[in-house]
Amino acid sequence: MTRIVLLTDFGTADGYVAALKGVLASRAPHAGVEDAAHDIQPGDIAGAAWALRRYAHLYPPGTVHLVVVDPGVGSGRRGMAAAACGRLFVAPDNGVLALALEGCGERTLVELRSADHRRHPVAPTFHGRDLFAPAAAHLANGGSPTDLGPPLQDPVGLELPRPRWQGEVGLGEVVHVDRFGTLVTNIPGEWAATRAGLGLAVGEPPVSAPLRRTYADVGPGQLVALVGSDGLLEVAVRDGSAAALLGLGRGAPVRLAHLRKGGAESRAGA
Amino acid sequence: MTRIVLLTDFGTADGYVAALKGVLASRAPHAGVEDAAHDIQPGDIAGAAWALRRYAHLYPPGTVHLVVVDPGVGSGRRGMAAAACGRLFVAPDNGVLALALEGCGERTLVELRSADHRRHPVAPTFHGRDLFAPAAAHLANGGSPTDLGPPLQDPVGLELPRPRWQGEVGLGEVVHVDRFGTLVTNIPGEWAATRAGLGLAVGEPPVSAPLRRTYADVGPGQLVALVGSDGLLEVAVRDGSAAALLGLGRGAPVRLAHLRKGGAESRAGA
Amino acid sequence: MTRIVLLTDFGTADGYVAALKGVLASRAPHAGVEDAAHDIQPGDIAGAAWALRRYAHLYPPGTVHLVVVDPGVGSGRRGMAAAACGRLFVAPDNGVLALALEGCGERTLVELRSADHRRHPVAPTFHGRDLFAPAAAHLANGGSPTDLGPPLQDPVGLELPRPRWQGEVGLGEVVHVDRFGTLVTNIPGEWAATRAGLGLAVGEPPVSAPLRRTYADVGPGQLVALVGSDGLLEVAVRDGSAAALLGLGRGAPVRLAHLRKGGAESRAGA
Repeated sequence: MTRIVLLTDFGTADGYVAALKGVLASRAPHAGVEDAAHDIQPGDIAGAAWALRRYAHLYPPGTVHLVVVDPGVGSGRRGMAAAACGRLFVAPDNGVLALALEGCGERTLVELRSADHRRHPVAPTFHGRDLFAPAAAHLANGGSPTDLGPPLQDPVGLELPRPRWQGEVGLGEVVHVDRFGTLVTNIPGEWAATRAGLGLAVGEPPVSAPLRRTYADVGPGQLVALVGSDGLLEVAVRDGSAAALLGLGRGAPVRLAHLRKGGAESRAGA
Repeated sequence: MTRIVLLTDFGTADGYVAALKGVLASRAPHAGVEDAAHDIQPGDIAGAAWALRRYAHLYPPGTVHLVVVDPGVGSGRRGMAAAACGRLFVAPDNGVLALALEGCGERTLVELRSADHRRHPVAPTFHGRDLFAPAAAHLANGGSPTDLGPPLQDPVGLELPRPRWQGEVGLGEVVHVDRFGTLVTNIPGEWAATRAGLGLAVGEPPVSAPLRRTYADVGPGQLVALVGSDGLLEVAVRDGSAAALLGLGRGAPVRLAHLRKGGAESRAGA
Repeated sequence: MTRIVLLTDFGTADGYVAALKGVLASRAPHAGVEDAAHDIQPGDIAGAAWALRRYAHLYPPGTVHLVVVDPGVGSGRRGMAAAACGRLFVAPDNGVLALALEGCGERTLVELRSADHRRHPVAPTFHGRDLFAPAAAHLANGGSPTDLGPPLQDPVGLELPRPRWQGEVGLGEVVHVDRFGTLVTNIPGEWAATRAGLGLAVGEPPVSAPLRRTYADVGPGQLVALVGSDGLLEVAVRDGSAAALLGLGRGAPVRLAHLRKGGAESRAGA
């Protein structure tokens, strides 16, 4: 059974998500439909891109990922479909697929132009229902992306801060805050792989968190840095929220460095 | 595969929705179960009715729509099932189906009275689990609505404000606010179909929004009126929330009229 | 079709739930996956246990319940699987299964130790994806719990307040507050089965609610005590929230007793 996995910023209460699902049920009756999330912050393309990166490749090959976070609906922005890393994707061409497609070798990208694979008329404010869902249904039915339109050469990217080394210090920033208040940074875990005594300093003035293996390696309420489950360095509070404790969020500066003596285990705010 | 689509105001954290699903899985093991929404505001019959109207007929014929927004549970209010427009419906008889059934030609409406299609005993506070879910399972299994009880002659309606013309001016009101802060009105899009220079004035004192095709036809942060994806006139703010900007919600008055010169493009609040 | 039913405190926006689902789709492609809830309060083991108790046994025999509310992830706490009452369970060994397993006769409990049924490496912060989901997939594929590891003899329990009789008075407390603001107590409904004139007194100083059959047996805005749909005594407000009206929550004291004359029908706060 082919799966279509949905990621949107629609919420559910208005019935927009169910409208998508109704179109999918009508056009791809044998596909399974699963919800990834519908509570992406309205218009938060980067947030959706991080979530998608986390799960897209855990689904089996052939899975269709339908992503509708689309603040530019009705403007000139294009719709796109992609075949990459064995999975299929349908989304607005606004960068929301950028992280999931990163590192995939051969990729087929097309612009959604075919009049045969959309609802008529297309509402200028709801391409999810009228354009993207029909395209996803076509792919789930075994149709080719190339049926959907001409090649798309220059997909819109996601402007993301890149981490860098400054001498012995790794510089990055917080790129995501999760439900538990964990601060996910853009610094790869490998940068800290073989270095004892390291820690992360976050915010300004910086607060230090020692690098450990997991939450339980520090006491309740204490800050800890670790390599998260997606391979990125994170700052967390055991049984608490680092975001709330530190008052930090996306964009906060992060430094990976050797901790000064005595600073490592200090409780934040103490 | 027959689908049962769920719409409730239960939230999910308490396990009430999963209780419904468990009953459906036990009684209609071959049906597919999909979530429309469970975050309808507690007891908001009109909100559920608008959501259902948006998606019910996008699902394929034979789909079973199970709707449990039921502030009167345990009172004398009746339970009902309906076959209309090729779809099947199970819900309390409180008006929540009214918009979805509107305009359907032949309709079969029954009251849920059969003792053979319920759990025993029926908890007086949870008809969703004990009465409505078994009825939906029966329909998903191919059973007839008429097995569930006698004809229901006079379903409870939904008291909704009706739009009207006053000379050249269309008068209506806001009937729904969506997640993006868009104000959905009860004025049909056709009322504005052929009239250039029109706009919507909302609130008191009224703020004007020019009628355009889509959000991108105005600048970021500007008000725009448009025909929404369900055929109703809406007031939105590009990349923002009209509800927050104007401080308006359900019930706010709306006038469809020719905009005075200079007023059309003005930024709200300026 | 075997179902895997998910209960977590992950929220959905971060993509953690979709990561679980991706693993399940890859490892148990023929199982159906259903969401119970993902909005359990972070780390709220008791809240998840109550929800699970409400729905676990309504699903058909053979259903796999995957529960990931896991504040101790990465610590020494064990992972477990269980076969009990005809259903299968996978969860951290932290008490979250305690209420659902209560009263089941023969039970098979194992510790998740098998290296053959996990992802490699296991991220110390995401056992849901790497340990629990693969175990649930194994069970959904018809595998035996005993493949997953050695017997677990002493599962962690849930420290719950127990109700007791003090003379003619039943003493208990609020153990759950649901979305509607209903205060669910730990006092069994049978304790009130045959006693007319009874009521519940909640909070300190106590406010009395008369024992009735359902919400509609009192006027709008009035307090009512009743036997809830799970067999426990509850305090509710018709068309309102008892939690908000009384300012009470989990842990508030509850007394089941004969109401004094005149107190029964009084409006709370009046």
